[in-house]
Amino acid sequence: MASMSTLFTPTPHRTRCIPKSLNAHFAPPFKLAVGGKARHGIVRVRAGLIDPDGGKLVELFVEKSQKDAKKQEAASLPKVRLTKIDLQWVQVLSEGWASPLRGFMKEPQFLQTLHFNSLRLDDGSVVNMSVPIVLAIDDLQKRRVGEFKKVALVDSDGTTVAILSDIEIYKHPKEERIARTWGTTAPGLPYVEEAIRKAGNWLIGGDLEVIEPIKHHDGLDRFRLLPKELREEFTKRNADAVFAFQLRNPVHNGHALLMTDTRGRLLEMGYKNPILLLHPLGGYTKADDVPLSWRVRQHEKVLEDGVLDPETTVVSIFPSPMHYAGPTEVQWHAKARINAGANFYIVGRDPAGMGHPVEKRDLYDADHGKKVLSMAPGLERLNILPFRVAAYDKTQGKMAFFDPLRQQDFLFISGTKMRALARSKENPPDGFMCPGGWKVLIEYYESLAPADNGKVPQTVSL
Amino acid sequence: MASMSTLFTPTPHRTRCIPKSLNAHFAPPFKLAVGGKARHGIVRVRAGLIDPDGGKLVELFVEKSQKDAKKQEAASLPKVRLTKIDLQWVQVLSEGWASPLRGFMKEPQFLQTLHFNSLRLDDGSVVNMSVPIVLAIDDLQKRRVGEFKKVALVDSDGTTVAILSDIEIYKHPKEERIARTWGTTAPGLPYVEEAIRKAGNWLIGGDLEVIEPIKHHDGLDRFRLLPKELREEFTKRNADAVFAFQLRNPVHNGHALLMTDTRGRLLEMGYKNPILLLHPLGGYTKADDVPLSWRVRQHEKVLEDGVLDPETTVVSIFPSPMHYAGPTEVQWHAKARINAGANFYIVGRDPAGMGHPVEKRDLYDADHGKKVLSMAPGLERLNILPFRVAAYDKTQGKMAFFDPLRQQDFLFISGTKMRALARSKENPPDGFMCPGGWKVLIEYYESLAPADNGKVPQTVSL
Repeated sequence: MASMSTLFTPTPHRTRCIPKSLNAHFAPPFKLAVGGKARHGIVRVRAGLIDPDGGKLVELFVEKSQKDAKKQEAASLPKVRLTKIDLQWVQVLSEGWASPLRGFMKEPQFLQTLHFNSLRLDDGSVVNMSVPIVLAIDDLQKRRVGEFKKVALVDSDGTTVAILSDIEIYKHPKEERIARTWGTTAPGLPYVEEAIRKAGNWLIGGDLEVIEPIKHHDGLDRFRLLPKELREEFTKRNADAVFAFQLRNPVHNGHALLMTDTRGRLLEMGYKNPILLLHPLGGYTKADDVPLSWRVRQHEKVLEDGVLDPETTVVSIFPSPMHYAGPTEVQWHAKARINAGANFYIVGRDPAGMGHPVEKRDLYDADHGKKVLSMAPGLERLNILPFRVAAYDKTQGKMAFFDPLRQQDFLFISGTKMRALARSKENPPDGFMCPGGWKVLIEYYESLAPADNGKVPQTVSL
Repeated sequence: MASMSTLFTPTPHRTRCIPKSLNAHFAPPFKLAVGGKARHGIVRVRAGLIDPDGGKLVELFVEKSQKDAKKQEAASLPKVRLTKIDLQWVQVLSEGWASPLRGFMKEPQFLQTLHFNSLRLDDGSVVNMSVPIVLAIDDLQKRRVGEFKKVALVDSDGTTVAILSDIEIYKHPKEERIARTWGTTAPGLPYVEEAIRKAGNWLIGGDLEVIEPIKHHDGLDRFRLLPKELREEFTKRNADAVFAFQLRNPVHNGHALLMTDTRGRLLEMGYKNPILLLHPLGGYTKADDVPLSWRVRQHEKVLEDGVLDPETTVVSIFPSPMHYAGPTEVQWHAKARINAGANFYIVGRDPAGMGHPVEKRDLYDADHGKKVLSMAPGLERLNILPFRVAAYDKTQGKMAFFDPLRQQDFLFISGTKMRALARSKENPPDGFMCPGGWKVLIEYYESLAPADNGKVPQTVSL
């Protein structure tokens, strides 16, 4: 079986870029009804990938010939030191996931994001933008910036990462930002505690120019494809539909069933070559989520074990940090994938949700995410594919779509249950997850044990 | 001087409805730049009033011939008892201020309001809708409704007010509603404490049919013009521009200067007959605001004293309750006035704002209201006119637009200061407010004194 790395590196068997006319031959434009799954019940099968938001994919890298000059310029500018999460946003912005944003938000963009989850462009069109992508500075940093119109952004080592120009500094209304983004101000929201409450009282927006593309040097950079590279890969593979699956958890066979089934449905709709973008989130996650490196190993095993077809699957890492902001954040997850070329988005129960940090309940209504996503401004072009619920079918000994008429036959294995099993080195029922993938999970929890002193790590629902 | 009641009752000197073609003669369609005051710097001077949201003004009154049948039907339905604020929303909805809404929101409208401050209509167009107009019921009421598809809405006396049909009952996510509407969940928000925290855990949406138009029988009903009646009045007066001024406070000469100045600017723009809609809010306000009846008396005096021109001013009462939700609520205030025919909206510093209920600061940034309003989806047709700051000019002995070059000449008299003066029966500087209007304020605070036992009522900023 092909290893995962072959799934997105240049595909030698299809290196020739398919010309548009040929592409069109494979997927003639026509309309078909899809039973209310897509907005207005109509999906247009068409040649070429979906356009990025704003019409043009933004990349904010300094040109090679300009690098030395920019570094020299940066040396003369006031410096703003980036946190780890700030740096993740620099990566997100510079690679174009937030197209057409060209840098950290200025106040008009920040306010539109908070109030409308969308941005109006100069031509009057609207793009979705639901989470603020902002850079906080404190009073001292603000004083240091003074009258400068540009600043240098540096990492924790002091290395210059980028220049932010045409800057605007404005108040950081933390409480309001938290309330409008999460729909609560309760203490204990992971991203809030990590990146907002301790942050400075000012936000600095401006145009970003990144000197060197952000690399992590963690052995996973080869999985971090830029939106542009993903688009090239989909084009090489002659994809006429791209369906994205955002995840931050191990893949079990219920997920796999869903993805395989989705491909089948797209073929039925008339698409000739739907490609799956399996797109684990790679930025900040909360402490009790399975770390990225283990998740990627687990995903690799799932591909190696043949649960998903490598020929029609691209696995890549989405560099964004996680907000756990439910219906607000799922819009961001979907919008960013448009920029990477996806025109179908699979949405599940309680996307980007978590337990309420204070009360004994889920923070969000489990159905609000898909409802909000299906009505979100700027996402009209994206076809939303709601998750069908999969559970372990005891009569078949495998994961299957839940049938309410014979509900006694089904076993629901929650993320919490799955983690508890892996932690205690028990096996789930046969057919719940491929053995190779399960082994990775067990190894992960074994690796935790010494540091843990036998303590059971906190768990949350999948 | 004409009393205020003549300002909006049928104007005998202009009873003939101006035909459209003649109207067009007075205001030929042409474009002019207005220095960035209007969106995209362009105002189209045109014949006829601005269209209501959704193209058609909604009125939700039962036809006369149907009243008995509807009352009979209501008697057979489960009953939902309305609070005073619920009844104000029934009035708002039934009169068409929230057009194209046809009743209390169902969940898709509620979610769009919370997340996007706007509603997408069936034709794909977008209208603004920033505050949830919802009806809460408790567990017991929900059980009583059971499988019924309609309910009767009754007032505190048990009298049937309306029928709500094609109902949907869904969860009332109070914390999320509060956080997303106010940008805070701090205790002490007046509307929240009055109408949300104590309310039921369910919301019931549906189509509203009101049996009898809502009347208050408080001597002020003659001031409560429906959007349709206001449109008729503006048409009778041959208005080619209508500029709305929302207020919940006494009018001082700074306000008057602003309104007079606005009219002058509209004339300069090429309008022949701009009409002011002076539109005090008449629904729920917090305890330390000046009550509606006193405010209306004060406004009447301002007109009688000739501070505003009755010929070009319509004074009417806006029946909505007040949220004090700043940038979120100002959109509602503006949107509702479109439905009443206004195509210009005057917005001031910190509209619909108040002090933070817990922290020692204003709840909202004073500039966010006008910024958010100018970017709000669905309000593109409305011309936003930002307030110019007026203050007492000591050299002229009157209210004047503040000139930062000679700031030592100006005295800022805040709402708090104004109330403190009136309470202690002192006079403000000559020219701050017309004497008749000031006398009303003093009388109001005198009327409070006995019940107050000499306690000073809490005050807030204007």
